[in-house]
Amino acid sequence: MKITKFGGSSLANAFQIQKVCNIVLSDEERRVIVVSAPGKRTKDDIKVTDLLIAVAKARLGGSSYTAELDKVIARYEEIADELNIEQVMPDIIERLNNIASADYTDDIKYLDSVKAMGEDCSARLVAYYLTKEGHKAKYCNPAECGLYLKHDEAGKAVILDETYDNLAKLKDETDILLVFPGFYGVSKENEIITFSRGGSDITGSILAAALDAEVYENWTDVDNVYAVNPSLVKNPFPITEITYDEMRELAYAGFQVLHEEALYPVYIKGIPVNIKNTNNPVAKGTWIVSNRTHYDSLVTGIAGDKGFCTITINKYMMNRQVGFLLKLLGIFAEEGISIEHLPSGIDSVTIIVRKKYFTPEKEGKIIARIQHELDCTDIKVEHDLAIVMIVGEAMANSVGIMARAASALSNAGINLRIVNQGASEISMMFGVAESYCSYAVKVLYKELFRY
Amino acid sequence: MKITKFGGSSLANAFQIQKVCNIVLSDEERRVIVVSAPGKRTKDDIKVTDLLIAVAKARLGGSSYTAELDKVIARYEEIADELNIEQVMPDIIERLNNIASADYTDDIKYLDSVKAMGEDCSARLVAYYLTKEGHKAKYCNPAECGLYLKHDEAGKAVILDETYDNLAKLKDETDILLVFPGFYGVSKENEIITFSRGGSDITGSILAAALDAEVYENWTDVDNVYAVNPSLVKNPFPITEITYDEMRELAYAGFQVLHEEALYPVYIKGIPVNIKNTNNPVAKGTWIVSNRTHYDSLVTGIAGDKGFCTITINKYMMNRQVGFLLKLLGIFAEEGISIEHLPSGIDSVTIIVRKKYFTPEKEGKIIARIQHELDCTDIKVEHDLAIVMIVGEAMANSVGIMARAASALSNAGINLRIVNQGASEISMMFGVAESYCSYAVKVLYKELFRY
Repeated sequence: MKITKFGGSSLANAFQIQKVCNIVLSDEERRVIVVSAPGKRTKDDIKVTDLLIAVAKARLGGSSYTAELDKVIARYEEIADELNIEQVMPDIIERLNNIASADYTDDIKYLDSVKAMGEDCSARLVAYYLTKEGHKAKYCNPAECGLYLKHDEAGKAVILDETYDNLAKLKDETDILLVFPGFYGVSKENEIITFSRGGSDITGSILAAALDAEVYENWTDVDNVYAVNPSLVKNPFPITEITYDEMRELAYAGFQVLHEEALYPVYIKGIPVNIKNTNNPVAKGTWIVSNRTHYDSLVTGIAGDKGFCTITINKYMMNRQVGFLLKLLGIFAEEGISIEHLPSGIDSVTIIVRKKYFTPEKEGKIIARIQHELDCTDIKVEHDLAIVMIVGEAMANSVGIMARAASALSNAGINLRIVNQGASEISMMFGVAESYCSYAVKVLYKELFRY
Repeated sequence: MKITKFGGSSLANAFQIQKVCNIVLSDEERRVIVVSAPGKRTKDDIKVTDLLIAVAKARLGGSSYTAELDKVIARYEEIADELNIEQVMPDIIERLNNIASADYTDDIKYLDSVKAMGEDCSARLVAYYLTKEGHKAKYCNPAECGLYLKHDEAGKAVILDETYDNLAKLKDETDILLVFPGFYGVSKENEIITFSRGGSDITGSILAAALDAEVYENWTDVDNVYAVNPSLVKNPFPITEITYDEMRELAYAGFQVLHEEALYPVYIKGIPVNIKNTNNPVAKGTWIVSNRTHYDSLVTGIAGDKGFCTITINKYMMNRQVGFLLKLLGIFAEEGISIEHLPSGIDSVTIIVRKKYFTPEKEGKIIARIQHELDCTDIKVEHDLAIVMIVGEAMANSVGIMARAASALSNAGINLRIVNQGASEISMMFGVAESYCSYAVKVLYKELFRY
């Protein structure tokens, strides 16, 4: 059995939705469809989710939201019209109106309930269309199916353990196509909770894990994941196979393929993920697997991400001071700043953090605490670090990748602020100035793929 | 004013001691002489300190120690005889006998008191000789001068703060050469406490700091510190100037020039250290300074040291687990294992420790705790890591050293297990298999110095 999840571009209009249905119907193993909200039809279009956010914000701001809601309705009307299922619209319009105008006590809960309507209406519409076309299909309500979530302390949606047992019951429904809205679940109090943006990927992964799927198909609008960001390099090398671990490392440095949390449920069960193209279903796509069967290249992918800061602390004979590192990490933990990496010298240590969390206020407080509690005066903060990763399982024991990478960067005049290789056998990391980020990725790609 | 400290080879026989006295007398700024115990006269000779340890061990083991003590006495007799100061011997023999045969309650304290006699007798002998030759000189008793030490929890000798004030009073004795025994001080209860082996360097450094010396001269038997271990490379590049920080980094990876703790007192005061050769006093030697005045080469030195272990921990989505690193470091701290370095991947972290502390018992306990407390199963321990360091302030902002170093190692077929650059601006670190340690140092030297 296969779980098939379709992204926003696959739901953007009637033509795309017909492709989705053809894909699902062409393989009887495809029993569960997870759908996103309609995405952009053209480059300058607005995604339905963004339209819904505008509705909620208007309401929360005390202004009229009807103009915004009309835009949402217009999107579904256009689709229904082209699919000749205008009959579905009264129900969809009523639901949208009811949710948008509902009483609320909590702004965040209200916003979540409105945002979730994009996926919910997509699922209802697709189920209706399939049924009308003569196929056995039904909309699945996450609340009724028991897709239970809660908020953690940070406000992030996390999955309750029982969700997997609840969803496993869908295994019994073997004679009907299940159309499941992505992106959201409900609390035990039956309030809607959404994942963070892109969270339909997580819904698909949870279903794949709960139903012990043979494969989790994630349908998007590209033939493959590529070895490098296609906006940087023309005709980049396609990745046909990649492990979960490799994907994690590349995602860390900016590879945007799946939602970061989406791989975890299928990773635990070892269910392979197949990234495929709705617009070219015959393309084999990219397989994300536990263990690779083949390598097309020594390096799997190269990625770079900006937005890091470094805090470098020097103290003579630091490494003789027992517990120094522990106290230092304690300060960051107490201030709620997550440490990304921690390269150390003999009498120095650099702490790498994400800029978005390391606010000027936090910076001031942390620096003061280090000075005071650790008696350090030589502290240097830099705010413009980019991290570039070279990832590939095949390079684990290969001598010379570091040499080639460092030489290529050096010949291109790029100064290496940080070099880190060793903890992970499948990656090496370079820290460069942010302004060099894309250039460094291109230089490395040229060296390691255009050989 | 200059503090002059002489090592064991400079005290090994009468001829060497005459050189020492000539050196001291040739510059009237040399007011304080710190002496070691007589070292080896020939390659197969035994140092007086080792003879004294044999005396103490015989006594502690319940056997006769007289044969061992006679060897010590014979060394001083030979020197006194050649210097024509036989008159000094009855006093020295009586002191040695008294200490060796003294009642004791604590084995370690007894051992310390016997070990310290090597330096003590050297100082008495040199002071006697200088006086007899017509110079104003006197032996300084560390107990009377107030060189106070205590043992820390780990049994290591640490300097009491008041020691510096006490020794500062020696400033007043401007008309006489002070001959100070290295290697030991006393507790507030007047019991002898020795530093760890090579600790005469520390005595000299304390005196330099206490007396605000203009320079701390450390006299040994080589013209210079070299950019690489001279046993690995013929005619290695001499270091004419090096900073305290560079020296610390090289010492970490096995450079044995000064006792590791000896630099701290002079570092704090910014007093330059001049490493000089008793056998070639006109050589300018190596200067250890706060801030360099010149660079002879891009890289200052290359060193390698064996004896490290790595513990690599993999856990999917580790970097999303808040406080993971802190808990991990807590386990090592609670088990008393000092962490040397901590390179991290995205879902992995490697902990580098010194093998000598990471016993099989500690290893078992720590692994079990990581498995249990952090729910990690993918833990890999490797016991054969060597660390090779390239150190040089001049390479701080130079592009390409990493590339050249990595390429040289790669071309030599050496696999880089760990690469760490960034925290310290003055060094880069490579982790290689122990069996490649010397080879890697030679390869790097050839690349970076024989250009």
